Amino acid sequence: MNLSQAIVAGDETAQRRAIAKGITLLESTRADHRAQADALLTELLPHAGRSFRLGISGVPGVGKSTFIEALGLFLIAQGHRVAVLAIDPSSSVSGGSILGDKTRMEHLSVHPQAYIRPSPASGTLGGVAAKTREAMLVCEAAGYDIVIVETVGVGQSETAVAGMTDMFVLLQLPNAGDDLQAIKKGVMELADLVVINKADIDPDAAMRAQAQITSAMRILGQHGRAEHAHHDETLWHAQVLQLSALKAEGLDRFWAAVSRFRHLQEAGGRIAARRRQQSLAWMWERIESGLKQAFRQHPQVQALLPQLTREVEKGGIAASTAARQLLAAMLEPRP
Amino acid sequence: MNLSQAIVAGDETAQRRAIAKGITLLESTRADHRAQADALLTELLPHAGRSFRLGISGVPGVGKSTFIEALGLFLIAQGHRVAVLAIDPSSSVSGGSILGDKTRMEHLSVHPQAYIRPSPASGTLGGVAAKTREAMLVCEAAGYDIVIVETVGVGQSETAVAGMTDMFVLLQLPNAGDDLQAIKKGVMELADLVVINKADIDPDAAMRAQAQITSAMRILGQHGRAEHAHHDETLWHAQVLQLSALKAEGLDRFWAAVSRFRHLQEAGGRIAARRRQQSLAWMWERIESGLKQAFRQHPQVQALLPQLTREVEKGGIAASTAARQLLAAMLEPRP
Repeated sequence: MNLSQAIVAGDETAQRRAIAKGITLLESTRADHRAQADALLTELLPHAGRSFRLGISGVPGVGKSTFIEALGLFLIAQGHRVAVLAIDPSSSVSGGSILGDKTRMEHLSVHPQAYIRPSPASGTLGGVAAKTREAMLVCEAAGYDIVIVETVGVGQSETAVAGMTDMFVLLQLPNAGDDLQAIKKGVMELADLVVINKADIDPDAAMRAQAQITSAMRILGQHGRAEHAHHDETLWHAQVLQLSALKAEGLDRFWAAVSRFRHLQEAGGRIAARRRQQSLAWMWERIESGLKQAFRQHPQVQALLPQLTREVEKGGIAASTAARQLLAAMLEPRP
Repeated sequence: MNLSQAIVAGDETAQRRAIAKGITLLESTRADHRAQADALLTELLPHAGRSFRLGISGVPGVGKSTFIEALGLFLIAQGHRVAVLAIDPSSSVSGGSILGDKTRMEHLSVHPQAYIRPSPASGTLGGVAAKTREAMLVCEAAGYDIVIVETVGVGQSETAVAGMTDMFVLLQLPNAGDDLQAIKKGVMELADLVVINKADIDPDAAMRAQAQITSAMRILGQHGRAEHAHHDETLWHAQVLQLSALKAEGLDRFWAAVSRFRHLQEAGGRIAARRRQQSLAWMWERIESGLKQAFRQHPQVQALLPQLTREVEKGGIAASTAARQLLAAMLEPRP
């Protein structure tokens, strides 16, 4: 049994080991590993894509771990198999302790029907996101039918997670100003569903937050998708829910909303369309990242870049002129 | 007298003609023109950079033309020379009629101390922005000491304008929801000053809008610049003003705020730092754009791209695998 077969059809222990080995191979930066990794991906691809991909974001302290643990156990009790992946661009600094740390989800992490993988700990957000996307395909090929991709609410990682999932959920605290921060970062706009967590601590504040966010999303949506589809009954309108993950209150309503979203999106063919669009965007993101890396590693560019950077900074040469000289150094090599 | 000399020191008629000729050269896409354009830029650069660069944005209907005409005439009366440039990524569609149309500013456009140039009408936002940046240097070399770069509040052009100016001003209408749209698009965050125009039409609504935007900017700023500099008296805190451009009311207060911003920023060395950072960002934006263009034009890439795109769309190959194959086709040519 080779690696892809073990991932798709191994018994529990062998499968778990094969998944870990496969993801480690996909995360490797060695050139020979990369060729093996591409072969593995191509073998797994026919078995992938059958899960529901759920993105979850929220700032530190919002209760993501508690929420995901409660949700994961709730879903396993309904017969699902749940994989949890994480994207944390800061994990190369923090050693990956913020996200994906198995001790955060003590019951879920030891459950045979769950697989938890911390954030890849290397490089740029684009690189981390690419590795997580590939890990998602491995988990799907292994038969996990719910894949949760979580990220911490800092930086641009929310866009990356929304760009690889079927539904994007934003966890919020019932604090004034949190919604403005989410709007500012463009995260509110990405959300298919907003969940106000810890609603039990201050029910009045949670009610106010729900009203404010609902109103803000209505205004934000005015120039967006809503205008195109007044008469489309399969259309989902972003919603705002309250719950308490700690007390496991509201998970049933949360999952009912997710299921309704999934049903409407599948009926309209939107999940397949969203995934096609995501795949193409991902391909172009990887191309742009690869071009930039090749540029920075080109010997002629490396020879010219420091001097031209200084000239641009002190105003001796226009930035666009410097850019053209550097591009010519890479793309039009002198004989 | 060659072109750069005519731009720097020509008499009024010769200079105006030379500016137009120089900008047209900079906007040309012909390869031989490009070399001449780079030579011109390098000659002009020592004479550029001495203006105050003011970015102005606002949605259609907010009254940008009326505001800029009133402001331009106000500044000329104080002895300034004023250039107005525009960035309108839609102008290739609209024929440039939205922005930069001289009939919009009937008095300013015929004034000998003003120079108005419509948006370049070609290509991507990055290309349009690059050409406008270069046009700005031409106007500066010709001695215009106030350069206004305007853009319409759609798309990403606000970021481009904020990225080439010393101060970014957002015009808003006193309408509920306008501020949320500006926050959503990340424009509120870019604004050094927010101006509520047409305040005379509904003074109560204008007061409410001013209070709301002031409060929103305070919350948005909490995680930003404010926290770093509690004791820095040269620090500017973003402000919100009301005025009526149509009645020319409030221009003096507006310009007093701009002057105070400029004074504080220059005292702290921040304008020079902002310009250095803008130049480097501009250089990298042009490099990335050039790399992508070279990729799309590469014969091997063009041969592979349609087939690989279809494979990615139908799930036959992973997006990252396709990206690696395309990059190899360009960067590792087979002998």
